[in-house]
Amino acid sequence: MTERLYLEDLQVGQRFACGRHALDAEQIKAFAREFDPQPFHLDEDAARGTFFGGLAASGWHIVCLTMRMIAEKVPFAGGLIGGAAEITWPQPTRPTDVLEVVSIVMEVTPSRSKPERGMALLRTETRNQKGELLQIFTAKCVVPRRPKAS
Amino acid sequence: MTERLYLEDLQVGQRFACGRHALDAEQIKAFAREFDPQPFHLDEDAARGTFFGGLAASGWHIVCLTMRMIAEKVPFAGGLIGGAAEITWPQPTRPTDVLEVVSIVMEVTPSRSKPERGMALLRTETRNQKGELLQIFTAKCVVPRRPKAS
Repeated sequence: MTERLYLEDLQVGQRFACGRHALDAEQIKAFAREFDPQPFHLDEDAARGTFFGGLAASGWHIVCLTMRMIAEKVPFAGGLIGGAAEITWPQPTRPTDVLEVVSIVMEVTPSRSKPERGMALLRTETRNQKGELLQIFTAKCVVPRRPKAS
Repeated sequence: MTERLYLEDLQVGQRFACGRHALDAEQIKAFAREFDPQPFHLDEDAARGTFFGGLAASGWHIVCLTMRMIAEKVPFAGGLIGGAAEITWPQPTRPTDVLEVVSIVMEVTPSRSKPERGMALLRTETRNQKGELLQIFTAKCVVPRRPKAS
């Protein structure tokens, strides 16, 4: 069991390697059927004549796979709880991509009004096996402060 | 079949009613097992002692359900293709919530460099049956311009 990290344990620049996930066409289509049923996520032939020029993963699929990886590897006390997030997708994700995820602490801010917690700004980058940036995902996370010994 | 909308067909303030979806505890847990396996999304008892004080849906679950609803109801020509998105969750989503989704066009901007397309900023609000705002999801969408008659 990894040690749980409280706000006091976090530092700007701290990095978490969150591992790898190999994508494939079947995963892309299964996610799309459930949550983003558009031709360029569902079928190679239909995708050819679209903006993407071929099968591409839903951006939300990449977010969800990334979320699972950081939920397992970023051990904030109390869990990963976000109130807001920003996402950009610099390029499409393809069926042959192997995702590699790294999270970096960008800011650590104690709450002014709630002495028992604070906010950590976490930037998570998802790249493929060529090092190409597929997604930048920045989230404001609620992190508890270490309880005082009683 | 709904008429497909090109950039020229969009106006600031244009609204799309995207329908309703009734959530329940089983859907929340099934999504969490696959993409966000944290105690407050997986189990009522484990959720009680957490930040949420009871079972709450993963924010990404609400995004994905919202995405499916807008993919079916916002008929941009070429599909719904986003390069960036911002999301906030003003309050947790609970197993008894019935989601209601409305999208509003906030900006329409022709591309300076690409004459065949432009950008629409789409704000999508997800509320529950009490009208409480659960999620605001703003996305920059790529929208093609209407092809000239040849």
